[in-house]
Amino acid sequence: MEDFKALIKEIIKFRDERDWEQFHNSKDLALALSVEASELLELFLWKNNEDFNLNKLKDELADVFMYAFLIANKNDLDIHQIVLDKIKKNADKYPVDKAKGNSTKYNEL
Amino acid sequence: MEDFKALIKEIIKFRDERDWEQFHNSKDLALALSVEASELLELFLWKNNEDFNLNKLKDELADVFMYAFLIANKNDLDIHQIVLDKIKKNADKYPVDKAKGNSTKYNEL
Amino acid sequence: MEDFKALIKEIIKFRDERDWEQFHNSKDLALALSVEASELLELFLWKNNEDFNLNKLKDELADVFMYAFLIANKNDLDIHQIVLDKIKKNADKYPVDKAKGNSTKYNEL
Amino acid sequence: MEDFKALIKEIIKFRDERDWEQFHNSKDLALALSVEASELLELFLWKNNEDFNLNKLKDELADVFMYAFLIANKNDLDIHQIVLDKIKKNADKYPVDKAKGNSTKYNEL
Repeated sequence: MEDFKALIKEIIKFRDERDWEQFHNSKDLALALSVEASELLELFLWKNNEDFNLNKLKDELADVFMYAFLIANKNDLDIHQIVLDKIKKNADKYPVDKAKGNSTKYNEL
Repeated sequence: MEDFKALIKEIIKFRDERDWEQFHNSKDLALALSVEASELLELFLWKNNEDFNLNKLKDELADVFMYAFLIANKNDLDIHQIVLDKIKKNADKYPVDKAKGNSTKYNEL
Repeated sequence: MEDFKALIKEIIKFRDERDWEQFHNSKDLALALSVEASELLELFLWKNNEDFNLNKLKDELADVFMYAFLIANKNDLDIHQIVLDKIKKNADKYPVDKAKGNSTKYNEL
Repeated sequence: MEDFKALIKEIIKFRDERDWEQFHNSKDLALALSVEASELLELFLWKNNEDFNLNKLKDELADVFMYAFLIANKNDLDIHQIVLDKIKKNADKYPVDKAKGNSTKYNEL
């Protein structure tokens, strides 16, 4: 967990120097995360699948990570654990024999 | 970087068991990330700022992390580095003396 | 149906003068609509519920309508009809006696 | 304007029978619009550009229109007018001679 924690510490430092924790309620953090993910997506608008600007992608992906880390931190979530838990759930929803080579959503499998 | 890498390895293992890499072009990964961030946001619809279901938040945030990790991995990005780089850029856009206690967007500061 | 049609005609004229129909596949139109809806949402980030810039809201809402009209037009959809059909479906999912004064999602009612 | 008004009247009737106006603050309406636009977009995830379910598209597009109409109605906006105003602004940002056959964003033209 060391890496996540070190990075979150940097983000919190940036936030606290600006006294921004007061704005960071859970609803607005989720809203900010969604807005940043949409800005990343916009890089692909009217473009082919691999036709994008890598430097802009880095910037937007970093924003997504920052808000995702802030939401995890605000709720004392162990990122490693929640991702592993979700992989287990997904393994039940998408058993290998049904899902292999198939992008169909689980409720239509 | 150890933790990020260990976690990404688990996600890749899940993906490859299902032969899903073929669907994971950059545009659709960005689309999936945006859809998952929106599902997280939906938990707050018609609700007060801190009124949400923590178990659902964990699930949706894990989905966001998974697609963010997959995008980072596909582009060989060093998550630690891109986040630190973005914090530096943000520090220029939001200097402490102007931004302190102020949620105004940088282009309106 | 007159008004929708007149407005869609103006949007199509703008599009065709720029020879943009070639970019307007269904997936990118849906992507554009989502990006514009997210830009409208961003006006409310870190803000109270009614604290927004009305001129910016007009601009972003107009963008949302333009892409929604283009999607309807591309698929020959009767906007009046699809909205009335959806209201009927919603009336089944949210019967007045259960839904009155209650913002709970239908699958949790 | 007759058609827009007739349709908005039906949406308001549905809303008021359920006493839902109390939940419809501007921020949550914008949030709902964004969530619905994202659900429409999800129909295209891992799919080719024209590979989608038309019935689901109708449902999701109807949801987008409903929230867009509710936002227009709450702010007494003339949909016809705001769209025409935006087309004029876009015509300045995207002059025909520069934008013809070109999907580049205006700030990069």
